[in-house]
Amino acid sequence: MTQAHTHTLKSYDKELDDLRTLVSQMGGFAEAQVRSAVDCLTTRDTAMAERVVAADRKLDAMELELERQVHGIIARRSPVADDLRGVIAALKISGALERVGDYAKNIAKRATVLNQSSPIRAVGILPQMAAETQRMIADVIDAYVEADSGRAIDVWQRDERVDALYNSLFRELLTYMMENTRLITPCTHLLFCAKNLERVGDHATNIAEMVYFSITGVVMEDVRPKGDDTSYTTLDPNDPERYGA
Amino acid sequence: MTQAHTHTLKSYDKELDDLRTLVSQMGGFAEAQVRSAVDCLTTRDTAMAERVVAADRKLDAMELELERQVHGIIARRSPVADDLRGVIAALKISGALERVGDYAKNIAKRATVLNQSSPIRAVGILPQMAAETQRMIADVIDAYVEADSGRAIDVWQRDERVDALYNSLFRELLTYMMENTRLITPCTHLLFCAKNLERVGDHATNIAEMVYFSITGVVMEDVRPKGDDTSYTTLDPNDPERYGA
Repeated sequence: MTQAHTHTLKSYDKELDDLRTLVSQMGGFAEAQVRSAVDCLTTRDTAMAERVVAADRKLDAMELELERQVHGIIARRSPVADDLRGVIAALKISGALERVGDYAKNIAKRATVLNQSSPIRAVGILPQMAAETQRMIADVIDAYVEADSGRAIDVWQRDERVDALYNSLFRELLTYMMENTRLITPCTHLLFCAKNLERVGDHATNIAEMVYFSITGVVMEDVRPKGDDTSYTTLDPNDPERYGA
Repeated sequence: MTQAHTHTLKSYDKELDDLRTLVSQMGGFAEAQVRSAVDCLTTRDTAMAERVVAADRKLDAMELELERQVHGIIARRSPVADDLRGVIAALKISGALERVGDYAKNIAKRATVLNQSSPIRAVGILPQMAAETQRMIADVIDAYVEADSGRAIDVWQRDERVDALYNSLFRELLTYMMENTRLITPCTHLLFCAKNLERVGDHATNIAEMVYFSITGVVMEDVRPKGDDTSYTTLDPNDPERYGA
């Protein structure tokens, strides 16, 4: 690097750093929204649910700011190769994080309804699903910030566990609904909460693919088995083994 | 434009045209996948459902090819202003269309299960929802190709109708489940099918915002009321007016 270029390159590096910092902040905020949304369900805190719904706007504003920065960097710096991949990845990751926020918001809205009726046992599985997906979001953002492709692969592989929890919860909730029709409405909302968390896991997995490509320039091969098979789930309400007399 | 620049600009224009063509092809394909997925449900055609699931890979491949073209254009052409916004919009729109394809695939998977049990009356509302969302996708892609901001606003406003159909179907399906516990599993799959179509409408709306920004450089104000209020829906199973004796 020649001395003459140092200033220009330093301010370019700073712009790329600022972009990474913003992605990291968005990741932290999206993760916190998921945790808070599920806390609203377990602690039955409707006021907190309303705060989570309102806070989603901040994530939308961060995505807009990030896109503004990306436009600026491309227009002024004409990034190529690794830098260009990093900038495009930042844009795509921010889009995925914004949607993670949407899922958190949707869980918070449903918490408001669920807090109006009696607690349901199955709620207990949700914090475990939420904890798994939060860790996936946190780790995949770390993988992005530290350009750690191995960590991205690790996150990508962990989505199976979230899918397994979702499959188990899906079956459990259908059983509750069949046993007691009064639980149909709350269990339906819980089903959608669980589906939202499963989608958060999918987005973390997609982000892992973006991070991997951004670091290596190679597309991560689609070898991971899809673990959510509830699209094919059937339950026979007359099976006495499963549903009792 | 000087004569010397004509060749370079012409091939640059061709690259931008090719990008728009690919977005348009992706839009057409995503729209066809949504239609086919819902056709599998209404015609109870499981073989078609398997074809829809398999065809989703094509949309993934198109998204990858589009990202490759975007990288190439940014690296070689250093687009600015309108051109840069158009290129970034193409990237974001292709991401949204890929997810529309995921929703169609998910509906097709659930069709496979639903075709194993007796037909449910409520299936009838799905084709209407599907037709609305298909038209939204088709029109928003036309708005993008023709740089028609008015048409983008029109699509954006139509999402309310999709949300209204979803709200009505959501309530109807909960009622069926309460009346007959044998319908809980199929109705749950139909609920998710309806939710998928509602999300397709949301994506068409998001694309409308991307198209509007790409054409005008101005962010479309978030004034549209959110029509899907089922996150807050409760049904009282003991309400005799609603559920009979």
